[in-house]
Amino acid sequence: MSTTGKRQLARPVSIVGAGMSRFGAFPDKSSRDLFVDAFQDLMENLDQGMDIEDIQCAYVGNASSDLFEHQGHTAPIIADWLGMTPMPVTRIENACASGGSALREGIMAIASGLYDIVLVGGMEKMTNLPTEGVTDVLATAADGLYEVPAGMTFPGIFGAIAKAHMDRYETNLDHLLKVAIKNHRNGALNPKAQFNVTIQDLMQRRMSRAQERGQPVPDYQDEMDFLNDPQANPWIAWPLRLYDCAPITDGAACVLLVSSDIAHNFTDKPVEIAGTGQASGRPLHDADELTSLSAAKVASQLAYEMAGVTPDDIQVAEVHDCFTIAEIVAVEDLGFFAPGEGPRAVDEGRTALNGDKPINTSGGLKAKGHPVGASGIAQIAEVFHQLRGEAGDRQVNNPGLELGLTHNVGGTGGTCVVTILRRGG
Amino acid sequence: MSTTGKRQLARPVSIVGAGMSRFGAFPDKSSRDLFVDAFQDLMENLDQGMDIEDIQCAYVGNASSDLFEHQGHTAPIIADWLGMTPMPVTRIENACASGGSALREGIMAIASGLYDIVLVGGMEKMTNLPTEGVTDVLATAADGLYEVPAGMTFPGIFGAIAKAHMDRYETNLDHLLKVAIKNHRNGALNPKAQFNVTIQDLMQRRMSRAQERGQPVPDYQDEMDFLNDPQANPWIAWPLRLYDCAPITDGAACVLLVSSDIAHNFTDKPVEIAGTGQASGRPLHDADELTSLSAAKVASQLAYEMAGVTPDDIQVAEVHDCFTIAEIVAVEDLGFFAPGEGPRAVDEGRTALNGDKPINTSGGLKAKGHPVGASGIAQIAEVFHQLRGEAGDRQVNNPGLELGLTHNVGGTGGTCVVTILRRGG
Repeated sequence: MSTTGKRQLARPVSIVGAGMSRFGAFPDKSSRDLFVDAFQDLMENLDQGMDIEDIQCAYVGNASSDLFEHQGHTAPIIADWLGMTPMPVTRIENACASGGSALREGIMAIASGLYDIVLVGGMEKMTNLPTEGVTDVLATAADGLYEVPAGMTFPGIFGAIAKAHMDRYETNLDHLLKVAIKNHRNGALNPKAQFNVTIQDLMQRRMSRAQERGQPVPDYQDEMDFLNDPQANPWIAWPLRLYDCAPITDGAACVLLVSSDIAHNFTDKPVEIAGTGQASGRPLHDADELTSLSAAKVASQLAYEMAGVTPDDIQVAEVHDCFTIAEIVAVEDLGFFAPGEGPRAVDEGRTALNGDKPINTSGGLKAKGHPVGASGIAQIAEVFHQLRGEAGDRQVNNPGLELGLTHNVGGTGGTCVVTILRRGG
Repeated sequence: MSTTGKRQLARPVSIVGAGMSRFGAFPDKSSRDLFVDAFQDLMENLDQGMDIEDIQCAYVGNASSDLFEHQGHTAPIIADWLGMTPMPVTRIENACASGGSALREGIMAIASGLYDIVLVGGMEKMTNLPTEGVTDVLATAADGLYEVPAGMTFPGIFGAIAKAHMDRYETNLDHLLKVAIKNHRNGALNPKAQFNVTIQDLMQRRMSRAQERGQPVPDYQDEMDFLNDPQANPWIAWPLRLYDCAPITDGAACVLLVSSDIAHNFTDKPVEIAGTGQASGRPLHDADELTSLSAAKVASQLAYEMAGVTPDDIQVAEVHDCFTIAEIVAVEDLGFFAPGEGPRAVDEGRTALNGDKPINTSGGLKAKGHPVGASGIAQIAEVFHQLRGEAGDRQVNNPGLELGLTHNVGGTGGTCVVTILRRGG
């Protein structure tokens, strides 16, 4: 496959609305309920009202309702629960990149000329299984022939990536923890986040709880001190600890795509799809190196070429921080920082909300939560809100905000989807 | 959703190649192996050679490798096994309509302007589970909240449809069996079919075996007599018997789609996508009637409108005969015959290979086999070969053959995809 050559959509596509369910653990909700929650949020927040009959087609990103809920063929069930039958609806599965790939199909469906108004959502119901069950389901996104029988699970795989990064560059354990601290700070400002709480708050809670119970109160000097306490932050797969891992989450998100020529019928503030790139990568056991995901490099290159921009032009980004190390690798793969410079960027606060390259303003997968099929769409929702200046307490303070990016990874880079959004259009 | 209004692709799309693995039970092959078999068949049969590097994007239709093989995220694994990384590749899941929906995504990917050459395939590995396990996996295509807990499985669901058809119309058990006899006759002419054997042959085999073993030899007068022997053809879910059901199958199929303006670089005999329609239907427990699938009616209407043709114009069709009754309902839903007239059509031989409306010349799901994610693509492959006059012993004897149709159903009509193919273009 040629990875060069600038391609353009036959007609441009814009986002005119976005919605999200609350992310968290909801024992009473199935994935179809969560999708309805996200859709109702979208409808309530549309700038102009819309008749749902106007929606012509939908895509549902979902990684494994098969194994989580013993339910396949979820797409028409979603159409039924939204009252949209006989609208055509198709499920897209690319593991944790299912949402990003679903968005691409929605974009192409409009560009193809077949549809003008398309709903794209993603959802996952995960908390009904115990943690070891979730780990087993997620491992189906790795290679079941070579990797899983060798004992590889995702914390182990990303632990290996972290170790390789530490060996090759100056990366240390503190760098990883600083990603978690930053993302929890952002998540604390996001009312829909699963953990809308800072690490500082979690530290205080632990100290208060000990005091209430008459137990010895830990003498934490600061967040880093707390995160280095193996009681508070146990090892999961060295060098990753509990707070290096995204949580297990129930949730859904959706966006409304329209042909750009009718976007102003829906809103005065549309957000255009400026670039989209997707690529596949070889399974980790066959990858050329562990410190980078080749699919992310190819996908971002394609998206940059289509948008006619460079990494330096991107002003805000949501990247796939399923583990803290994944964010560090992402900001390097995307060209925001040179290989090996990701750790320093977080150290110096450059990726913080008030930094020069704010990353994961939503709290990221780490704090907002990671309902795998929904994550790629929730990333788009966040950048949509940022570019429209409606991200509330976590709004990036930049009146010239115009270009944002999302980076959505499936497995260990088997799939990567990069989307570039531009205000206006 | 508006189901009227003629839509056209921004640019036309053609099929220039098709391939299939052998369909059957292959204990040593996983779904990725089967996909490679299908792709090699495609490459070997291309009219002009092609560098696989020219393929820009791929789709993989697959219903449930998650539950059959405990493998998700199959798309990049296929890219890896074909040597096509970093080509973008996405899995499409709409139960047994996964193949048909994957084709639609491939069509739209080209029409969107992003790609010129797209591979679309489908595969399923099913025979590694025992029959009851397969039934359980397939039941995930029904509604897990309302239908499955009530004891519904697919043979039961289609048994209910058959009973409703018998109650409402003149349909009887013999009509169902005649669909099986016809499709096995066609399958016997298809070297890739799982059952490339007639019911007549199966009857003879049973008689010979009894003789060899010194057992009483059944005194069958004809095929119908054999099929009415409950020892030879046991009840599965009344009024459906073993030979009313499609088998459990391992297999894969793929087609090569290109922008029509470059089709002649690949072949002198391209086949154009003249129409495509997809629709969703409410789960069976909420359907308005049992004797028809609403999604099939809507999807076919959309496809006819796009192609500018009527049901009478269709000269050959592959329809989704997961059970014999499903073929009868299909030919009525597609408008080939009036409601209730499907049984008479098969009775009078109109749907036979030499009839005026040949249906399932490949043997259909019934005799060719039904590896669920592959079936929608294998249907396309059959009509492609028929329109090009290369279907061998089962070639429809009509030199003016120009228009063919495929009808691919997911679940009990939760999804239906109808595709109309036209010779030339």
